[in-house]
Amino acid sequence: MADSINRRIVLACRPHGRPGLDNFRLEQARIPEPGPGQVLCRTIYLSLDPYMRGRMSDALSYNPVQVGEVMVGGSVGQVVRSNLDGFAPGDFVVGYGGWQDYAVFDEGAARKLDPRIAPISTALGVLGMPGQTAYVGLREIGRPRAGETLVVAAASGPVGSVVGQIAKIRGCRVVGVAGSSDKCAYVTGELGFDACLDHHAPDFEDALRAACPGGIDVYWENVGGRVFDAVLPLLNDFARVPVCGLVAWYNATELPPGPDRTPLLLRRTLVGRLTIRGFIVWDFEPGDFQREVGAWVRDGRIRYREDIRDELENAPAAFIGLLEGENFGKLLVRVAPDPTR
Amino acid sequence: MADSINRRIVLACRPHGRPGLDNFRLEQARIPEPGPGQVLCRTIYLSLDPYMRGRMSDALSYNPVQVGEVMVGGSVGQVVRSNLDGFAPGDFVVGYGGWQDYAVFDEGAARKLDPRIAPISTALGVLGMPGQTAYVGLREIGRPRAGETLVVAAASGPVGSVVGQIAKIRGCRVVGVAGSSDKCAYVTGELGFDACLDHHAPDFEDALRAACPGGIDVYWENVGGRVFDAVLPLLNDFARVPVCGLVAWYNATELPPGPDRTPLLLRRTLVGRLTIRGFIVWDFEPGDFQREVGAWVRDGRIRYREDIRDELENAPAAFIGLLEGENFGKLLVRVAPDPTR
Repeated sequence: MADSINRRIVLACRPHGRPGLDNFRLEQARIPEPGPGQVLCRTIYLSLDPYMRGRMSDALSYNPVQVGEVMVGGSVGQVVRSNLDGFAPGDFVVGYGGWQDYAVFDEGAARKLDPRIAPISTALGVLGMPGQTAYVGLREIGRPRAGETLVVAAASGPVGSVVGQIAKIRGCRVVGVAGSSDKCAYVTGELGFDACLDHHAPDFEDALRAACPGGIDVYWENVGGRVFDAVLPLLNDFARVPVCGLVAWYNATELPPGPDRTPLLLRRTLVGRLTIRGFIVWDFEPGDFQREVGAWVRDGRIRYREDIRDELENAPAAFIGLLEGENFGKLLVRVAPDPTR
Repeated sequence: MADSINRRIVLACRPHGRPGLDNFRLEQARIPEPGPGQVLCRTIYLSLDPYMRGRMSDALSYNPVQVGEVMVGGSVGQVVRSNLDGFAPGDFVVGYGGWQDYAVFDEGAARKLDPRIAPISTALGVLGMPGQTAYVGLREIGRPRAGETLVVAAASGPVGSVVGQIAKIRGCRVVGVAGSSDKCAYVTGELGFDACLDHHAPDFEDALRAACPGGIDVYWENVGGRVFDAVLPLLNDFARVPVCGLVAWYNATELPPGPDRTPLLLRRTLVGRLTIRGFIVWDFEPGDFQREVGAWVRDGRIRYREDIRDELENAPAAFIGLLEGENFGKLLVRVAPDPTR
């Protein structure tokens, strides 16, 4: 890579259904100059997350990426040039740098990282947006209590794995759902969930029922689809359903065939006094997230797994696979070498 | 009526879909004797409420009425004989006496009423379970703030009318939905809502949109059906949907035709960070309900309307009509003369 070149991946056109490689375009531009109060950073890790699918569509999102714009994404980088007090070349930072080699951050848009406290990549996973999502969503909506049963899908992923491990710390029975037997083995063996079920299994619904003999008090919704359908009849009175993601439906181009089961869902909500509540991480204050989860990570009570791909140009394929569950752990692209490893 | 006879209406068989008169049976029994710590009351008013439809089915309810049992129902009566300290013959009480001339209450099951404070019938409506439902559901779930827009269906009924009037007191824009032009005229003219729309109108969806130029922040769900469908696209970010009733679907024997719009509802919940929460009145403490709403009723800030039918034997037909929206105001059956009027 020539030193004056910034490679960046832009949204070439909006996808209809499953994104393809043609929805992305790799461009070359000059490395931007940081203005007053700004820092220029070289990207080391780019985070790939399901929410990006929503940003590719203009109808489904809070805040869509425009065609021709750099794809949005969290990143960990290293300061190259700084016009901002407190940031010096060589410092590590986390922010939303996007899918590119170099990014400029305004004051307040990047947070400094201390690589002696935790690996810098964790600022995109267990100690970053996904971990914080789990932490605040449980605190504000899921509210797991000791003795209750929590079910979480995408259980080996960066949100689901933290949701389940926090619920274990809180004294819950925790049942994961994941997309392969390897993932399920990791979730029970490494993460310590009480059970984990493969949602591809033909007897998944029965297995979920058997794994939740006392019903379900908290269902953390990451996926929708078949998992949601299986959970709904098992929800106990006063169950809470934080709606955090619906990845099973993100690529859908039409609704499932009938009948329309909306009345069923609302009647279950009424009779069971359910709370179904959507949120995103920024809706809530982080509170003690960094301190509390940081301590749990350091003492090994919360474990995490990363799935790291190399080279920026592999980001589109990795992202397309993410939507199909092909990753195993927090999906990152190593855009430049990590000098701390 | 012979003085020793207690007429009572029992569930003869469970309805499939819309209840018919054949689902009820009028029986005669001896007037029961109150045991130690009990009071015997003669029913004056019987309350008819949509929740009773759920109790007629064994699949849909928290607590179904058994076939052959007296239909459940709130009632206001007068003490005939008392073995309970603090209750004397002639006292007025409210409790769940059921669809019958006479009922026996255990200690704690009936509450004394002072007819000088409010008409005794209001203990079944604006100052009873329906009013309390509105009060606690707004306090705990709806949380209307000044300047927000609240929509409520069944707006001329005993819950919806109190929901809307409290929201007006709280400084909201309030839009009602009701089932006839007479009801709509009452809701705007007498209750002071900002608008009220007839859900039978062919342009109902457009009219609702026009009546809510700033979107909808609180949708109080009493009905489901077409109203829910029209509301969903208008909900603002962070909207709250207390699910209190779904009367439009109570008599349904099958789900509506497809496609299955469950994914649409959940995606709206996620992107809009909606809260959809079912409840019943007893889930929450009444708090200041009696004092606060009582004061508003006395000073005319909250108004109410009753639809009173005479004779116990007319209760089944009145109840069947209630599920079709044939009542106009709180539906009561006057089982015996009201000595306070």
